[in-house]
Amino acid sequence: MIESLKIIDSFVLYGVLGDLSVRKLIPAWYYLERDSMLSDSLQILGVGRKEISDSELKNTLKKSLETYVPSEYLDQKIVSTLIDRFSYCSCDLQNPNSYQKLKLKVQDWNMPMAHYLAISPRLFESVCDGLSGAGLVTKECRIVVEKPIGYDLESSQEINEKLIKHFDESQIYRIDHYLGKETVQNLITLRFANSLFSSQWNSKGVEYVEITSAESVGIEDRWGYFDGMGQLRDMVQSHLLQLLCLIAMEPPNRLDDQSIRSEKVKVLEALKSLDEESIASSFVSGQYTDGEVDGVYKPGYVNEEGARPDSKTETFVSIKTEIQNWRWSGVPFYLRTGKRMETKTTQIVIHFKSDGHYIFNENKESLNGNTLIISLHPTESISLQVFTKPHGVDKHSIIRSDPMSLDFIKTQQLLNIPSGYQSLLMDILNGNQSLFLCREEVELAWKWCDETLDAFKNSNQELFYYKAGSNGPRESEALITNNGYQWYEE
Amino acid sequence: MIESLKIIDSFVLYGVLGDLSVRKLIPAWYYLERDSMLSDSLQILGVGRKEISDSELKNTLKKSLETYVPSEYLDQKIVSTLIDRFSYCSCDLQNPNSYQKLKLKVQDWNMPMAHYLAISPRLFESVCDGLSGAGLVTKECRIVVEKPIGYDLESSQEINEKLIKHFDESQIYRIDHYLGKETVQNLITLRFANSLFSSQWNSKGVEYVEITSAESVGIEDRWGYFDGMGQLRDMVQSHLLQLLCLIAMEPPNRLDDQSIRSEKVKVLEALKSLDEESIASSFVSGQYTDGEVDGVYKPGYVNEEGARPDSKTETFVSIKTEIQNWRWSGVPFYLRTGKRMETKTTQIVIHFKSDGHYIFNENKESLNGNTLIISLHPTESISLQVFTKPHGVDKHSIIRSDPMSLDFIKTQQLLNIPSGYQSLLMDILNGNQSLFLCREEVELAWKWCDETLDAFKNSNQELFYYKAGSNGPRESEALITNNGYQWYEE
Repeated sequence: MIESLKIIDSFVLYGVLGDLSVRKLIPAWYYLERDSMLSDSLQILGVGRKEISDSELKNTLKKSLETYVPSEYLDQKIVSTLIDRFSYCSCDLQNPNSYQKLKLKVQDWNMPMAHYLAISPRLFESVCDGLSGAGLVTKECRIVVEKPIGYDLESSQEINEKLIKHFDESQIYRIDHYLGKETVQNLITLRFANSLFSSQWNSKGVEYVEITSAESVGIEDRWGYFDGMGQLRDMVQSHLLQLLCLIAMEPPNRLDDQSIRSEKVKVLEALKSLDEESIASSFVSGQYTDGEVDGVYKPGYVNEEGARPDSKTETFVSIKTEIQNWRWSGVPFYLRTGKRMETKTTQIVIHFKSDGHYIFNENKESLNGNTLIISLHPTESISLQVFTKPHGVDKHSIIRSDPMSLDFIKTQQLLNIPSGYQSLLMDILNGNQSLFLCREEVELAWKWCDETLDAFKNSNQELFYYKAGSNGPRESEALITNNGYQWYEE
Repeated sequence: MIESLKIIDSFVLYGVLGDLSVRKLIPAWYYLERDSMLSDSLQILGVGRKEISDSELKNTLKKSLETYVPSEYLDQKIVSTLIDRFSYCSCDLQNPNSYQKLKLKVQDWNMPMAHYLAISPRLFESVCDGLSGAGLVTKECRIVVEKPIGYDLESSQEINEKLIKHFDESQIYRIDHYLGKETVQNLITLRFANSLFSSQWNSKGVEYVEITSAESVGIEDRWGYFDGMGQLRDMVQSHLLQLLCLIAMEPPNRLDDQSIRSEKVKVLEALKSLDEESIASSFVSGQYTDGEVDGVYKPGYVNEEGARPDSKTETFVSIKTEIQNWRWSGVPFYLRTGKRMETKTTQIVIHFKSDGHYIFNENKESLNGNTLIISLHPTESISLQVFTKPHGVDKHSIIRSDPMSLDFIKTQQLLNIPSGYQSLLMDILNGNQSLFLCREEVELAWKWCDETLDAFKNSNQELFYYKAGSNGPRESEALITNNGYQWYEE
């Protein structure tokens, strides 16, 4: 792949009035505007179904900024500079004629363009065909899609086939917004610019790795959609496996798209498949029952509004897996994610191996290795636990050691970088695909999920239940304590 | 050696009215009193030449506390509790009869006692003989001596011989107050309780080590004394080599006196001797000339009051050395110390090896290893330099890496631990010798200094000059830059 460095200044946002756009993308554009990251010539065409005028769009965007940008960051001058970049085109995306109308709107714009599909994957095909039919697909234009890219390997292949009918892989930007987060990007620097870590980042130095993404919310108004997916497909397939790839990948030769993607693909290829036999010791799936979150009653999954009372869809999974390559042989990777859990937390914890010998006191429980904690939620931070001497003169003059935390990144610094979308939008404009998923990654991740769900189905292992507001089913604790480890709790 | 855990509560302080006592020891007792570290039964006999009463001593001590303890820490109740522990005995330490008088003073005190010689080494023999003659040397009593223990190997052997005539090695506490510092003790924890560091603490992980102790003061009122010593004997022989031992020693099997001391001895045994040939590339000695410190004129060394104008005594040395053992083969250790330098700084810097490959930008200058900085002056702190992603969305979306500092220990926490003497006094009371020097260490250090000074003398290398208020002679820069390294500057 030839690295494309052509900077784009014509951007079409499909679904401009939708939830993702209003809550995440428009605020992200705002912060980029504020930070003077945008080229003067950048124009954005919003596309939606509604028949509204340009000025109605602008009013809507203004209101959404007032809702989703904290007032202390809101500067009306920046708001209007941003909003002046926008115009609107109402389209029925399933109607090929719409694309002629769209073409008219952008006929004087600079080419190539970026097309951001903040819409249902059902519509991807129509949009691709429509753009192509209208002659709007050029060699250098870019198309951006959000997950879910399918429901399983087969359906994701179908979507990818539709995309590649009109676009080369180098033109397709598959977003996982976790990868836009400051802390996730910092993880790359941390791993590959610090010999202190890089030299230990393997089975000789690492005891085990945890990746947790707990949500305190339930399913809310998307029960029907979620029930068809389940937690493994919803969270593990993209977010958790992507984090796993960044943690586990070999050092790329260079920091370019191709090098990073090919290293991530190698991780997914080496990811151990669960079979019926290993399910019992390596896989726990759960569903939440009635309970309380922060003292407030929350209905169980099957008691949510619009729920099917006999649903066996999992809202929680924890998984022990391995990466079968030279670097990680024998190091367990624990993944855990659930809805309606006690707290909202997303974190990666690297447990370094401890020295075997401990001289500081009789309490051998203190014999732990160092721990690196990479938090994405509720705060973005990276901290290292180091054992130091307790402060002051010890009465018995015996030197002990206590763990303490070193924070690399202060939450405070991140207050004005509220989501990962800014950096991803800039990457789309600049043509940098390194933090976007390639087709092979997506499909390998689906293949692994399919195999895992099949193995589970065939294993006759039951679905375990956990109370809303708890830390998941008891069986998830056993999954890790059986190996002598513990889920990290702050 | 059998570990003695007998806690002593009878303490005799020789030179109670002297500078060391008044400035350091009495305030250290005060902080221990404040922190409830002292046994109710502890009694302290102050010994001095002056004929004063107990209550005159108490007044003097009270005044010295008011001078040397910051007023925000001074609590009159604690002052009087402490002072009530003190009584006084005036003694001519060269007169054997004095010790009968002293014996009378302590006849009802618990045995064994600790004798702290905060006096000139000239008097050590008289005190030992006097105490012995008066029957005050018992099997379990302890004797504490401050550096300098001699002027060279021969004279230090003489002093040690005098001590062991009456005391077993297990009774002798040779102080280097650097070892009482919180940060130095923390270094032991850092090295041996953190696998992240311990696994890299060798020639595979460490590129080079710096130990610097720079003073901004000159010689002040001790010109005659200093001129007979020089900077190598004054600073390197004890302080710098002790720090080097703690940095370089093998992990002790246990944290007891014997294990730590024998590991330190092994370092000194492995320390490379300089010979006439290596002097040119490994040794720089300097003397300060007229200059300015903080904008104030300061006379050169030979222009100080009471100076001999033709003195060739060094007030600065920098040394490149090696530890010839398996762990440190090929790793240079750079030592540097001087008077009338730009700033007062004591620090140890561990430069970890960098990864050979750098992916973050074209600027290969950034290709540095991680650095661990252990500061003893002007603040006590430990910090680790880690490379992280520069904060925020990069305009060109290229991930760079910037160094940042992680402070393990905040200066603030150390404000109420103003010197290393508290912990050393507690160790004396408790019978813990692990942070005191054994005879073999002292003598090996002198042997190395003697050899170095002899090699220098025979090499015909000149003494280099540096301006007061500078960072030492230019030749000291070359000593390290010739190897492609640099002295760490904050």
